[in-house]
Amino acid sequence: MGLPSNSGINLFNKYRKGKKNLITDIDAVRVGHVTIQRENVNTGVTVVFPHHGNIFQDKVMAGVAVLNGFGKSVGLLQVEELGTIETPILMTNTLSVGTATTALVKYMLNQNQDIGTTTGTVNCLVTECNDGKLNDIRGLHVHEEDVLKALNSPSEDFKEGGVGAGTGMYCFGLKGGIGSASRIVEIEGKEYTVGALVLSNYGSPENLMIGENYLGRKIKAKSTKDEGSIIIIIGTDIPLNERQLKRIAKRSAISLGRTGSFIGNGSGDIAIAFSTANRIPHYSNKEIIEIKMVHDDKLDKIFEAAVEAVEESIISSLYHGKTTVGYLEKAKGLKEFL
Amino acid sequence: MGLPSNSGINLFNKYRKGKKNLITDIDAVRVGHVTIQRENVNTGVTVVFPHHGNIFQDKVMAGVAVLNGFGKSVGLLQVEELGTIETPILMTNTLSVGTATTALVKYMLNQNQDIGTTTGTVNCLVTECNDGKLNDIRGLHVHEEDVLKALNSPSEDFKEGGVGAGTGMYCFGLKGGIGSASRIVEIEGKEYTVGALVLSNYGSPENLMIGENYLGRKIKAKSTKDEGSIIIIIGTDIPLNERQLKRIAKRSAISLGRTGSFIGNGSGDIAIAFSTANRIPHYSNKEIIEIKMVHDDKLDKIFEAAVEAVEESIISSLYHGKTTVGYLEKAKGLKEFL
Amino acid sequence: MGLPSNSGINLFNKYRKGKKNLITDIDAVRVGHVTIQRENVNTGVTVVFPHHGNIFQDKVMAGVAVLNGFGKSVGLLQVEELGTIETPILMTNTLSVGTATTALVKYMLNQNQDIGTTTGTVNCLVTECNDGKLNDIRGLHVHEEDVLKALNSPSEDFKEGGVGAGTGMYCFGLKGGIGSASRIVEIEGKEYTVGALVLSNYGSPENLMIGENYLGRKIKAKSTKDEGSIIIIIGTDIPLNERQLKRIAKRSAISLGRTGSFIGNGSGDIAIAFSTANRIPHYSNKEIIEIKMVHDDKLDKIFEAAVEAVEESIISSLYHGKTTVGYLEKAKGLKEFL
Amino acid sequence: MGLPSNSGINLFNKYRKGKKNLITDIDAVRVGHVTIQRENVNTGVTVVFPHHGNIFQDKVMAGVAVLNGFGKSVGLLQVEELGTIETPILMTNTLSVGTATTALVKYMLNQNQDIGTTTGTVNCLVTECNDGKLNDIRGLHVHEEDVLKALNSPSEDFKEGGVGAGTGMYCFGLKGGIGSASRIVEIEGKEYTVGALVLSNYGSPENLMIGENYLGRKIKAKSTKDEGSIIIIIGTDIPLNERQLKRIAKRSAISLGRTGSFIGNGSGDIAIAFSTANRIPHYSNKEIIEIKMVHDDKLDKIFEAAVEAVEESIISSLYHGKTTVGYLEKAKGLKEFL
Repeated sequence: MGLPSNSGINLFNKYRKGKKNLITDIDAVRVGHVTIQRENVNTGVTVVFPHHGNIFQDKVMAGVAVLNGFGKSVGLLQVEELGTIETPILMTNTLSVGTATTALVKYMLNQNQDIGTTTGTVNCLVTECNDGKLNDIRGLHVHEEDVLKALNSPSEDFKEGGVGAGTGMYCFGLKGGIGSASRIVEIEGKEYTVGALVLSNYGSPENLMIGENYLGRKIKAKSTKDEGSIIIIIGTDIPLNERQLKRIAKRSAISLGRTGSFIGNGSGDIAIAFSTANRIPHYSNKEIIEIKMVHDDKLDKIFEAAVEAVEESIISSLYHGKTTVGYLEKAKGLKEFL
Repeated sequence: MGLPSNSGINLFNKYRKGKKNLITDIDAVRVGHVTIQRENVNTGVTVVFPHHGNIFQDKVMAGVAVLNGFGKSVGLLQVEELGTIETPILMTNTLSVGTATTALVKYMLNQNQDIGTTTGTVNCLVTECNDGKLNDIRGLHVHEEDVLKALNSPSEDFKEGGVGAGTGMYCFGLKGGIGSASRIVEIEGKEYTVGALVLSNYGSPENLMIGENYLGRKIKAKSTKDEGSIIIIIGTDIPLNERQLKRIAKRSAISLGRTGSFIGNGSGDIAIAFSTANRIPHYSNKEIIEIKMVHDDKLDKIFEAAVEAVEESIISSLYHGKTTVGYLEKAKGLKEFL
Repeated sequence: MGLPSNSGINLFNKYRKGKKNLITDIDAVRVGHVTIQRENVNTGVTVVFPHHGNIFQDKVMAGVAVLNGFGKSVGLLQVEELGTIETPILMTNTLSVGTATTALVKYMLNQNQDIGTTTGTVNCLVTECNDGKLNDIRGLHVHEEDVLKALNSPSEDFKEGGVGAGTGMYCFGLKGGIGSASRIVEIEGKEYTVGALVLSNYGSPENLMIGENYLGRKIKAKSTKDEGSIIIIIGTDIPLNERQLKRIAKRSAISLGRTGSFIGNGSGDIAIAFSTANRIPHYSNKEIIEIKMVHDDKLDKIFEAAVEAVEESIISSLYHGKTTVGYLEKAKGLKEFL
Repeated sequence: MGLPSNSGINLFNKYRKGKKNLITDIDAVRVGHVTIQRENVNTGVTVVFPHHGNIFQDKVMAGVAVLNGFGKSVGLLQVEELGTIETPILMTNTLSVGTATTALVKYMLNQNQDIGTTTGTVNCLVTECNDGKLNDIRGLHVHEEDVLKALNSPSEDFKEGGVGAGTGMYCFGLKGGIGSASRIVEIEGKEYTVGALVLSNYGSPENLMIGENYLGRKIKAKSTKDEGSIIIIIGTDIPLNERQLKRIAKRSAISLGRTGSFIGNGSGDIAIAFSTANRIPHYSNKEIIEIKMVHDDKLDKIFEAAVEAVEESIISSLYHGKTTVGYLEKAKGLKEFL
């Protein structure tokens, strides 16, 4: 849902919002959450499915921007080299990337009997933020069955704020987590969607900017260091190639800037952009395949729409965050300051 | 001078401004301008000198961030590979980079009799923006003698706005050009300077953001496409190594975001950061040399100070721009909108 | 031991070999193996320890070269961003990187009570090759206790060939696996060591080149596709910074070329280079630290020594490989062809 | 012509040579040379034309690999960002890149009245090696008219060795310069060409390797340092996209390795690969365009053919080099050692 019209928040906006104002406005994209919450434990798993078929057999083109590589995400190298994603995209806490990777390997092996025998292996895509302020992260509370449960719950509708991988996230001294939004872009008279989903966990409280407002001045928080990271997923059904998707991913630094980030030393800021329009088959009966792409000269509106969707996703992750007393700190909800 | 205290503009600010609020607050850094202005011609050359000795013999460590590579700058590859700058940094119009490079070669050959005989060649650093809206850029009006004149006019004081390479620049539909600012950062009880100088020539008018104000709403301009580029030079006397300087250069995307850029497809946005603290001798009588660097865990304040200095430099370039009737368009000065 | 003097193999050689001719000739570097071998199962874990202290507290500078990113290694992003390694370097099979990461997380948490509470998280470095030809890789036969056992067995002496992570590796149609070698380089009259260790699992049989000999002509193998990858670790006690270490890592493409690789599409070829000379403390009581580095103009001998050590490591991995009947294929030992 | 069949040199070869065994075997590709030779002066210009139409209006897809960035080439940033080449590719001596750029700007302005007025500027592609051993490089003996002459002499047939930009080049202590070769690759039953052209100017004499022969042992030369650079151009008519072309360009490190390079610190080794199959129009009446590309799983034969063509081009540049007494040194022809 992103920011509702009555939120009282006005961001810079030129493009129309999608129907649900979520990344799932892109046909075929789905999201799954598993929330793990009990005393001292606030963590979970979120999955973005680029489509609902067999992603290994039918890959999507993708690009990556490492805005700040102080992060432990798994699988980005191969996306960079081959320009494709071949698994759902997982999000979880930093110390659980190993567990999430193993669970995703098992999920993929189960779906694809050829992996590791008649074909090569599989490139699992697992991203993370450190939820140690609100979650006993050393306890490694995400288990393989949690990850599999999230992998088995793709949905068009999903919650934002402190849910799934966002359960324990902390952003600008407030409760962060999952946020999403979408924008409509017209190309050759046809409507396309640019959607974003973020896992927000960064920012110095006093730096928060929302729209035409240096809101951070009002926030007092115990931790003032910008550490913790943000994962940014941008999806679209516009035909774009891997180089163009990387260019779009890089623009998310602009969205970060508008919210008051300075990309802190300890903030692992990673953006991944994919298009569902160009599918790359694992097995091709043709040696030469065809791809469609927007002429680069026409990319500006897509860049702008992506910047807007990511900015709104971030602010939405705060807007939907509720005051949470966590493991080491307490995170207030943004609404207390509006 | 950056933005004067009575400018009426309030940017997000946490760090104290340097004495002159210019990049030349960094001891040893100098700037030179040559302005070329007559009917249909609005162009020029600006030079940033990392220090006032022989830069080839006594290189400074540097890092580069290519925010968007739609640009024709010369010399960045070697800065990336070796982590050093060995010539003054030139700025001029896009079609004059060849002339500027040749003039800089001659200047360097003249200063260094060993280049090309007993030692290797020299890596000229020449950056550019397209001033074709206000300048007859096809006329190639920058000549070698103009470049040499700029190279021979290093100064601690220099003008901002439509001067030097900034003469014909156009930014957010307004008169852009040269802007500069500086910030003071304290490390181990000692004061250091982070300074910036920009050549601004980018932005869609309606997107302009200044402080807590979406000012672009007020601007009507003939050209609305974000094309044209920005060159961002960040200097400091803080001991930093080439990897850290690259990290600082990358943060300038944040400053761009705060001003309303979305890094347009056609905008060649290049940032170069150097430190005067670590000098690398061309000829070393020792095989092993010593370098000082800030511990990465202490970089955040430097990142923030750089983001502030670049943001103010951009807005200052607009603030000092005066309404100019150019070759193809007219650019208004920002003050008409304040 | 690398290639013994009576191996009958003559590679291009300009530098003297180290005492043991192993990566552990570098003072403080250790290697640990766990071999897992039973019917259909040929896999394992190898660990390279950059030093024998607490690596998280006392990091080593490092650089990475992704020669071909068709690979699933974990942790390289942060090495690239921060220029340091903070855990032992693991090697295992591709589908076990999740398990290896989780085990390494537990090992690091156990050693460092501050991780995830009073300080940030930890960047686990886990590399891999696909041993599916000789090993039932879908069976996920590497368990956390195997990884921990390897982590608890650092040694100055270690075996080469089909041991540890090399147990199931297959290279140029022959038995590949672990190989190592070292070279001595003199700097300012002092002797330093450049060592290498590889996990070899690549190459089209007919392409194999050894010294002045296109040996591949003699090899007949079932699989002729170049897929499978190589992991290359280069260590040294020479003071070098992260940029220089990356440059050294990139030179391993030269060693690959000399052995007959063309860096196949499906070969994840990753090189990591570290120096034990510059230690970066996790907690620094000084904001400014000192680093030593070789002047770039003096790097050539180090580049050459690294190229030689990597080339010999690769050929040594074949030389020590014994004919192995594996899960899907049989791999002959190189000695059958000498 | 590359290496004639009676050269006595046997390189590793799996692919059939093209008709002329030159880069111009690719339909539409042309090469032009201007040789400047008189006392103390041995320099020139070589141009590779990706096709014989208007390259600005009808761009070719391209990728770049910076094997070692100790080089002063102009225009690579934009190729990297946009994945296209929009001018002929120039080669000349290092200190003349400014002059060559200015001449190429004028040539492009003359062909395209829209550049700098109704459309943006132009990204000139100019590469270089330092010919200072055989040429009085400080004399800046390449003039704009020389460059224009080369730009106006595209030809299907061209000479190799010490001609054009290769006139003053020096390689492994021998006479280097221009070399070219081509290979035929079959895709879906159709024959395609992979061609290469190099400007060779690198290598330590004692390291030279030719086929199964460490030939460098025989060479005695005054200069033994590996400095000087190599420019490698790879062209093809196979449909490939910019990411794939970059992957091909990276494989040229393998060819370098087979000839005895270790990519010296001072050697600016740059590879550019382009395909004539995918043309990108400057002005597109469609917002969405179509591209063809080989499935990545079928790239291996193209990688191998490119590695072979580049290796033969390098050896051919030596084979065609004649003993030359130059400005500071004398370079022998390879044939004296065969």
